[in-house]
Amino acid sequence: MTTNSPTTQATNLTSDNPTTDALHNSPFMRACRRESVPYTPVWLMRQAGRYMREYREVRARTTFLELCKTPELASEVTVYAAERLGVDAAIIFADILLILEPLGLELEFAKGEGPVIHNPVRTAADVDRLREMESADSLDYVMQAIRQTRRALKPDLPLIGFAGAPFTLASYMIEGGGSKNYVHTKRLMHADSGAWHALMSRIARALPLYLNAQIEAGAQAVQLFDSWVGCLSPADYREFVLPHTLQAIRNIRPGVPVIHFGTGTATLLELLREAGGDVIGLDWRIPLDEGWRRIGYDRAVMGNFDQILLFTSPAIIREHVGRILQQAGGRPGHIFNLGHGILPETPVENVLALVEAVHELSRR
Amino acid sequence: MTTNSPTTQATNLTSDNPTTDALHNSPFMRACRRESVPYTPVWLMRQAGRYMREYREVRARTTFLELCKTPELASEVTVYAAERLGVDAAIIFADILLILEPLGLELEFAKGEGPVIHNPVRTAADVDRLREMESADSLDYVMQAIRQTRRALKPDLPLIGFAGAPFTLASYMIEGGGSKNYVHTKRLMHADSGAWHALMSRIARALPLYLNAQIEAGAQAVQLFDSWVGCLSPADYREFVLPHTLQAIRNIRPGVPVIHFGTGTATLLELLREAGGDVIGLDWRIPLDEGWRRIGYDRAVMGNFDQILLFTSPAIIREHVGRILQQAGGRPGHIFNLGHGILPETPVENVLALVEAVHELSRR
Repeated sequence: MTTNSPTTQATNLTSDNPTTDALHNSPFMRACRRESVPYTPVWLMRQAGRYMREYREVRARTTFLELCKTPELASEVTVYAAERLGVDAAIIFADILLILEPLGLELEFAKGEGPVIHNPVRTAADVDRLREMESADSLDYVMQAIRQTRRALKPDLPLIGFAGAPFTLASYMIEGGGSKNYVHTKRLMHADSGAWHALMSRIARALPLYLNAQIEAGAQAVQLFDSWVGCLSPADYREFVLPHTLQAIRNIRPGVPVIHFGTGTATLLELLREAGGDVIGLDWRIPLDEGWRRIGYDRAVMGNFDQILLFTSPAIIREHVGRILQQAGGRPGHIFNLGHGILPETPVENVLALVEAVHELSRR
Repeated sequence: MTTNSPTTQATNLTSDNPTTDALHNSPFMRACRRESVPYTPVWLMRQAGRYMREYREVRARTTFLELCKTPELASEVTVYAAERLGVDAAIIFADILLILEPLGLELEFAKGEGPVIHNPVRTAADVDRLREMESADSLDYVMQAIRQTRRALKPDLPLIGFAGAPFTLASYMIEGGGSKNYVHTKRLMHADSGAWHALMSRIARALPLYLNAQIEAGAQAVQLFDSWVGCLSPADYREFVLPHTLQAIRNIRPGVPVIHFGTGTATLLELLREAGGDVIGLDWRIPLDEGWRRIGYDRAVMGNFDQILLFTSPAIIREHVGRILQQAGGRPGHIFNLGHGILPETPVENVLALVEAVHELSRR
């Protein structure tokens, strides 16, 4: 693999490079393009995570933020998880909030408390004080991790880059961390829509710089996580979010599949589609067949196994995998995944059983 | 008012009692029956709550559980909130978890932590150890509060009784408190469906005893809160929840309107309807017109103002009230409410502005 040079990367989608061909024709990449596949490709959100003993061992040596910023370690946990699980794609180990630092926010992952932003954005003046991200240089540690991971991964295993979507990033910036009710976020959105749109525009300008740098470094596909967008009504999404997500996705390098994911989006699916993405992520609350019909068969879909079922048993997991595959109906363009990320206490053997069941039950 | 005697209560729906007529023909009760109304009736979930100074003063004198168990105080905050806001219904001050005590659970409202159940239900043996609730006698403090409230309320102001729905109660019993991911709940549901159904049946048997006692004591309508049911897929709801909610609702005294409420239910609306209820509650994530169309116009609907908009301003609130009323289209059978309960930090003046806007903008 030599995808760490821009020249090689640029030829990644041509067919005169055998390594590149292997990636291009991998089940995951074929499914992103809605082409036929020998079996349904599967990967799992947060597949490199605390549920895995080997991850915890690496994590114990450092802080969460330092793990993200140390390319060797980020690459190690990325590659280990993908190989251990036998999934059809790796996703670079990173955090959606890393981009907040070059935008001027003070980010900390407080022990046991999740992310804390010490200077949250609450007013128009706060928005004005944010920095414009001119390049992704200050996030180069992510690109280094991608280059190292791309070199270490099997040559036919795609690597997914990612970022938070504008709304979810804005909500963290405004709330100063996770939130239950998004009071500050919705208040700014409605009571100072000028400041809101300025903030969202700034994020939407930064995202393609970051994602294109990840692609340049060796990612074959990218995912936008709009994890918390499900707290919005469709009217709010259309007015306050859609234009910005659309702008971000439009400026991602053409030809690279974009996965657009959110949870609690049952009333937003048509709007997520409109905002863009080659693959739309579904959570477990909507039956996959119904969700796909509403999104339209000219897009691929990803999902949508209830991650809590990973706490049951291989037999129950297998039954529910079968149901989802049946709903997908063998139609090209289904990437199997969870409805949201794997929880820390999840038994590893059940995760392995899930991957095995997807491969076995979907083999054509 | 003499509705505290069973005899009088039994005649509550006949037309030869002028007081009863006033209740029967109140806008709220007419809307429950999808009859024409002079203006859209409105009440607000958690209208007697911490956002109100007068409530905080009463609350400061005691613990939350003692407030629920002291009829004078529960009645005082109920009546005060309804009169202060000028809403079209009062809802008895109580908590959905009170019924857990006669079922054999040790309930505590830990300061600043929300409810804690010290002996959660995790296994079939735990389910077996639960007590069967033979009558609502041990919850008589709620019925006393209802009788006192009914006497104190204006004779044309309906009083709503309520209980938690089987799923939401089961989730608290199993998790031992609030939950983010419902791991224990879903594990029991899927891994020991016999124990799950036994638990849900037991709750479904207890609920009508409790709700009918509330009706007997003087409640004109009752609401089932299935606040957390939105974490389920439609398939899980159908198999593990619907039969039990249906059983509970079927055994509520005929002729008394039942409001069936949940949040995050965009993919469950048809199933909520199937489980029962004269009025189906909608949260803010689904446009009211779309939700009502899916539920069917032979049911009334309640909702669905985003409670976070109460943190903006009277002008913005008024605009969004107008949108919801427009979606309701003047069709009989709309009760205005929030998508979920009022948050503690909500400015009272904005709540008043909401009620005023609903009345003004909907007056025919």
